[in-house]
Amino acid sequence: MFDPVEKLKEYIRCQSISADSKYKDGMRGAQEFVSGLLGSMGFAVEVVQTDLHPIILAQRGGDPAWPHVIIYGHYDVQPADPLNLWQTPAFEPTIRGNRIYGRGAADNKGPLMVHLAAVGQLLEENPKLPLRLTFLIEGEEEMGSPSFLPFLEKYQDRLKQADFVFLSDTGIPNETQMVITAGLRGIITFEIEAVGPKSDLHSGLHGGVLLNPIQALVDLCATLHTPDGKVNIPGYYDDVLEVEPWEREELKKLGANEADYRKFLGIDSFHTPPGITPFEAVRFFPTLEFNGIGGGYQGEGSKTVIPSRAFVKISCRLVANQDPVKIQALVFKTIQSRAPKGVTLTITEGHSGMPYAVVPPGRSNTPKDQSPVLARAFRATEAAGKEIWGKAPLYLREGGSVPIIGEIKRVLGLDSIMLGLFLPEDNLHAPNESFNLDILKKGIATSKRVLSAIAQP
Amino acid sequence: MFDPVEKLKEYIRCQSISADSKYKDGMRGAQEFVSGLLGSMGFAVEVVQTDLHPIILAQRGGDPAWPHVIIYGHYDVQPADPLNLWQTPAFEPTIRGNRIYGRGAADNKGPLMVHLAAVGQLLEENPKLPLRLTFLIEGEEEMGSPSFLPFLEKYQDRLKQADFVFLSDTGIPNETQMVITAGLRGIITFEIEAVGPKSDLHSGLHGGVLLNPIQALVDLCATLHTPDGKVNIPGYYDDVLEVEPWEREELKKLGANEADYRKFLGIDSFHTPPGITPFEAVRFFPTLEFNGIGGGYQGEGSKTVIPSRAFVKISCRLVANQDPVKIQALVFKTIQSRAPKGVTLTITEGHSGMPYAVVPPGRSNTPKDQSPVLARAFRATEAAGKEIWGKAPLYLREGGSVPIIGEIKRVLGLDSIMLGLFLPEDNLHAPNESFNLDILKKGIATSKRVLSAIAQP
Repeated sequence: MFDPVEKLKEYIRCQSISADSKYKDGMRGAQEFVSGLLGSMGFAVEVVQTDLHPIILAQRGGDPAWPHVIIYGHYDVQPADPLNLWQTPAFEPTIRGNRIYGRGAADNKGPLMVHLAAVGQLLEENPKLPLRLTFLIEGEEEMGSPSFLPFLEKYQDRLKQADFVFLSDTGIPNETQMVITAGLRGIITFEIEAVGPKSDLHSGLHGGVLLNPIQALVDLCATLHTPDGKVNIPGYYDDVLEVEPWEREELKKLGANEADYRKFLGIDSFHTPPGITPFEAVRFFPTLEFNGIGGGYQGEGSKTVIPSRAFVKISCRLVANQDPVKIQALVFKTIQSRAPKGVTLTITEGHSGMPYAVVPPGRSNTPKDQSPVLARAFRATEAAGKEIWGKAPLYLREGGSVPIIGEIKRVLGLDSIMLGLFLPEDNLHAPNESFNLDILKKGIATSKRVLSAIAQP
Repeated sequence: MFDPVEKLKEYIRCQSISADSKYKDGMRGAQEFVSGLLGSMGFAVEVVQTDLHPIILAQRGGDPAWPHVIIYGHYDVQPADPLNLWQTPAFEPTIRGNRIYGRGAADNKGPLMVHLAAVGQLLEENPKLPLRLTFLIEGEEEMGSPSFLPFLEKYQDRLKQADFVFLSDTGIPNETQMVITAGLRGIITFEIEAVGPKSDLHSGLHGGVLLNPIQALVDLCATLHTPDGKVNIPGYYDDVLEVEPWEREELKKLGANEADYRKFLGIDSFHTPPGITPFEAVRFFPTLEFNGIGGGYQGEGSKTVIPSRAFVKISCRLVANQDPVKIQALVFKTIQSRAPKGVTLTITEGHSGMPYAVVPPGRSNTPKDQSPVLARAFRATEAAGKEIWGKAPLYLREGGSVPIIGEIKRVLGLDSIMLGLFLPEDNLHAPNESFNLDILKKGIATSKRVLSAIAQP
């Protein structure tokens, strides 16, 4: 069997930055690394071409009566800049303490290695393991997975026969608490531009005559929240479900501390609707956030100009049962209805993604038609958590978005078991990204335990 | 006598950009050009050193009974970039049609040449002209005149004996309408920064928990105006004087057309308080304008971040009788009182300048103690307008600010007669700046006529 740490080093050395065409050699290297490893493990590997970066589809067939698990991951990474902030070069994997440093170590090369090593070991131990497996490893996750949805639609007949999707692309609060991610928020993004005079104007010669586009924009933006911290769009919360008592219970078990969280964020006070803790707010409620605003003079000192235009970039995080298409229509309509006279407003739609939530077996709101294999997989994951991590895993939703999980549910009808493996200190998307080698070990053991529990003739 | 057009060409060739230390040779060239010309006209020229660029103080003394006029101007110019937008190089004066092109042609080299040529011709025609003259030509006007106030204070004993200041650094609406600028707006500038979390945050992982600094800022900024277009700061208008009927009459005579103005600005509608025309708004009322706003992600597409900070740059234009110090205190206090909980607001003070207004003789609000020389100068300027421009000049306020005029009034107690000479098409501060040679001629004739009318034994 291969050494997962050595293999992970080899994998990290591939400079697989999907968003930058200068790194196409690194992208090919990472793709060939994963394809080669899966091939050496006996998988039938297809490299499915897309408009941009190919998707690796590797299958281990078997008796149609065997359970069938899809393992998802991605071989692309974020850009590594600012390079000068790295202690050791981003693409030279380096071990310091119990961590391996390098771009992609955590997102997603380490966690994918967890599942590759688990499957490799299982198949070495039992070449006749009664389990069908499909690895689905894409190369555009860090770009919003533009080729993934068309791929899903094209290959749905082969894929929808699976029982569920197994993946690690979410987090855990600390080294001892295993988490099964029970939900992800969806997202819509858009930009509003307010255009006023045909060019920037002298604020002395013309000030007081016309509506300044920055003023139009701040007036509009100020209407988008209520003073108590809710989103002020009629109908915005209509499809938000009541939080189930079991989910609140799970969250309580996390034992998160508000003072610690405030300190981590560096703020004096939270800003959540009445009666809602920050830990609930980020998991169970939708948001409307201003991600960027700009207009006029931004340099040092002052320039007394009335700008011709101003813009704001907004993202809305959505929770389970909210439909991004419906919410986007609602938000755009409300904004247009509040458009101030005197400027031209243009709303430009960005990317969007479905929210997602899954309910484990035995809860008040578990779907009646939950498949026995999925239910068994949840039970096995819970058992593996207790055994390997020393305490019961928590089912927690996460505030972030992994839009492909919702798309997999929508197109293939499959749920996902998300085994959290990122620690807060892993520095995802930042300099000095790293992955904890103890988590790597525990992850491999957990994945093996789950997959072998599902494997049944 | 020198040829003013040839001399103006020579003057424009001096690359006198005060804000850029690479141009110190050009600054010295322009200073020496003006000093030399004044010396050749018989003036006693002092080059007063300052922390940055010297001030030219050139005097023609005489009988203390003679009237004494200070002529103000500046020898520095704006930077010339973007250079690629100039049809001919910025510092190679070029005549096309009845215009001379080059950086500084209008602001302020052409208008200063008007007064230099007028004085030169007058003194050649009558070397014994019973008039004391002081040229005060600074080199930091385009930088906000930082050395000018200390200079005024230091030299006040010599300067305050003058009767009034004569200058051309304001505009006219067209080639046939002479304007005596009756007022200028004052200004305060400042920046507000809202700081929230200690670093930018992932809008998924933490969105919904804290007050986004952009939201804090737009909520605050939206409180600064009323829906009907007024500034929403208690007490802001307390010191604004009623507009005198004669001023409204003058403005009516301008015959400005709202549709033309809208077209010029490229807007569909004006935004002025009820009952106030745009032409009144820009001259008689204070403003609060957003000159720039920024925070978070400003690039293409989206980045789903909650920014750590956001800022807005604001300038307030003030009208006569408003005190910049008092208004600034009022504005800062109001903003602090509206500071949202959850972010830290910092207000940084920028530059400021006094508003200014002067009332010509014979009006309802003419000061009882107006000096006979100033009154005679106004009458002479009116007569020169009628004679040389073919119709009566208009007394119009301007929306812009020339803060040194208010400072001269405050420190020296002197009023200014501002002979407007810029046309809207002169492209001040922009590429292809030019000055109309017919205006140059009419300006020289007007200045001569005014100065000779004042000259009295």
